[in-house]
Amino acid sequence: MVLNSGSSSIKYQLFHMPAQQPLLWGVVERIGEAEGTLTQQGEGRAPLRRVAPLADHAQALAWMVVALEEAGVALSRLEGIGHRVVHGGERFCTPVRIDPEVVAAIRAMVPLAPLHNPANILGIEVMTELAPTTPQVAVFDTAFHQTLPAVAFRYALPAHYWREQGVRRYGFHGISHQSVCQQAAQVLARPLQECRLISLHLGNGASVAAVCEGRSIDTSMGMTPLEGLVMGSRCGDLDPGVVLFLQRERGLEASHLERLLNRESGLLGLCGSGDMREVLARAEQGEAAAQLAVELFCYRIRKYIGAYLAILGGLDGLIFTGGIGEQSAAIRARCCSGLEHLNIRLDPSRNEAAATQIQREGAGVAVLVLAAAEERAIAEQVANHLEPRHG
Amino acid sequence: MVLNSGSSSIKYQLFHMPAQQPLLWGVVERIGEAEGTLTQQGEGRAPLRRVAPLADHAQALAWMVVALEEAGVALSRLEGIGHRVVHGGERFCTPVRIDPEVVAAIRAMVPLAPLHNPANILGIEVMTELAPTTPQVAVFDTAFHQTLPAVAFRYALPAHYWREQGVRRYGFHGISHQSVCQQAAQVLARPLQECRLISLHLGNGASVAAVCEGRSIDTSMGMTPLEGLVMGSRCGDLDPGVVLFLQRERGLEASHLERLLNRESGLLGLCGSGDMREVLARAEQGEAAAQLAVELFCYRIRKYIGAYLAILGGLDGLIFTGGIGEQSAAIRARCCSGLEHLNIRLDPSRNEAAATQIQREGAGVAVLVLAAAEERAIAEQVANHLEPRHG
Repeated sequence: MVLNSGSSSIKYQLFHMPAQQPLLWGVVERIGEAEGTLTQQGEGRAPLRRVAPLADHAQALAWMVVALEEAGVALSRLEGIGHRVVHGGERFCTPVRIDPEVVAAIRAMVPLAPLHNPANILGIEVMTELAPTTPQVAVFDTAFHQTLPAVAFRYALPAHYWREQGVRRYGFHGISHQSVCQQAAQVLARPLQECRLISLHLGNGASVAAVCEGRSIDTSMGMTPLEGLVMGSRCGDLDPGVVLFLQRERGLEASHLERLLNRESGLLGLCGSGDMREVLARAEQGEAAAQLAVELFCYRIRKYIGAYLAILGGLDGLIFTGGIGEQSAAIRARCCSGLEHLNIRLDPSRNEAAATQIQREGAGVAVLVLAAAEERAIAEQVANHLEPRHG
Repeated sequence: MVLNSGSSSIKYQLFHMPAQQPLLWGVVERIGEAEGTLTQQGEGRAPLRRVAPLADHAQALAWMVVALEEAGVALSRLEGIGHRVVHGGERFCTPVRIDPEVVAAIRAMVPLAPLHNPANILGIEVMTELAPTTPQVAVFDTAFHQTLPAVAFRYALPAHYWREQGVRRYGFHGISHQSVCQQAAQVLARPLQECRLISLHLGNGASVAAVCEGRSIDTSMGMTPLEGLVMGSRCGDLDPGVVLFLQRERGLEASHLERLLNRESGLLGLCGSGDMREVLARAEQGEAAAQLAVELFCYRIRKYIGAYLAILGGLDGLIFTGGIGEQSAAIRARCCSGLEHLNIRLDPSRNEAAATQIQREGAGVAVLVLAAAEERAIAEQVANHLEPRHG
């Protein structure tokens, strides 16, 4: 079972391993609202739906356990539970079996991910209590990027901010970036250890990773998920002087700035909608602010492609994943537009069809559309961790 | 006469125009310190040096006027005075004749450049009082970048922060970037309007500009000079979430953050010295922190080269200027290292000799070492402004 106990929703999924066959999946949404919902589906099972006031994460997890029991799933029979944990700091670069000391370490990183790690810990605690004998494994969204070299992970700040306070680039979406890079190598029929890849995870959050020979060497999200690409409601790259200016000259308080940059910026700030489908529709109707939002989103991606291509020393594959990356041919086209001189050329009809490979015949760089499938990737990592292959 | 009344020093230079022949130049340094200094030199004139307590800008300008008089220069005989002004906001995209309304506009932009514009205004006021009949012209460090398209100058923040509060990318070092791009076109014997150039101004402050057909289309410094490359004591690009983290979790106050990011970061923060010559010397002696500082400085430049090459659609010339750019062959070599796949290849001996063109024979991209000569560029802009060529 894979559990993603996030800041505002809880997703869970059961797999039959090693076949990676999904048996059951569900989501509890709108935690803290008057109309919380749970939906659950599964192979050969009647879909479940529940709507009621939903106070907090503890209650949401209780709903989930009841729904699992109604579907005949006894927690005690699970062979392993994988927990997606957002921030593993510098300590966790692989999946880890959960024990009280690991939980304490994840708790110690709450200042680095104040919205996410507490929700992850709640999920771990509830499942540990309910299934005390089932192996529980934490899989970290930062782990894949722990291979970043110092030039990529250090900021130009005095060293003690890194050593004593953990200020450095961690990067996120690691489970997704790692998974699609492994898939890309299979599609290209080449060993991952010989591929130079750029992976674009474009969802409500968005990030890009430069992956050289299977190792992440740079990524756009930083110490926090705020840096990098334009996102649904996050600003991405921003002159740090702007933050200082808004404080000094406009008197904005820290809490106001947090809300502004995390929840009121990005596509939402630029044009009033953080949903790329709506932004694209409005742009098509000629709304200038929506057109700028789309252009800014894609322009910044083109710059990252150029930057990462430079440091990779060449490029074998460019990967689109995440909701926007998988579903929007228009965005994929704009992200690649004008990059023909770098051997990035799309085939319009393949792009429209969201084929696995969408580059033009003979283009030097493969362009791939791949499903992130993070739950599946977590299930695989957990299974591998619990039953290590003996060579 | 060109006057650069900066935040901690005042530089001035007299030219015979249109020959651009420098007649006299001087600098007043350590304003506000017990050992202020003035040094002045000129063609066929005895060098001048003065050391004494120096209270403020007004006194520094008074020293300058005395030194000019001692050299036989009567302010009333100057044909024009050009003032370097750091921030011209969105209003000034060319040089402008100074009148009270222009001074008011420059003053209105003080919140955008609180360290620089006040010093610039002081210089303007003193010279206007001393030479009331001499035409005075403001030349702006932001003006060249006013051609940036919206995708490059807008941040992903709600539009009213731009419209009402001026939050956008302005870019700086514009006088330098424009001047070296014009020089590069001459060296390459091509019309500037047909060149795609990347200009690296690497001094104590450092920035990079993408210049397409003579127009700046993107640049690394932002609303403030804090964004972009690693600098002597400025952090450059930084996750805005780091600023929020240091406030929220570490309780750093705004004034502390300003000082940290502007004066205690960059090369200085990374290894204890903000002077690249010293940093390079220490790196050569094996000091790990200095080696990291050099690598980080050059790594970020390589990423910007890649990003700007992508959006330019190709590259004709890569320009190094500024103190570090003009003087350090080691830095130039590291900035270009690993970019051979982008047709950027240095000739080691030409690079060591700081030849005007340092690319290898047959390399696709010209690599140039050019003097910024900002004072000369200002003099030329002032002369052109006062005596416009009639076509």
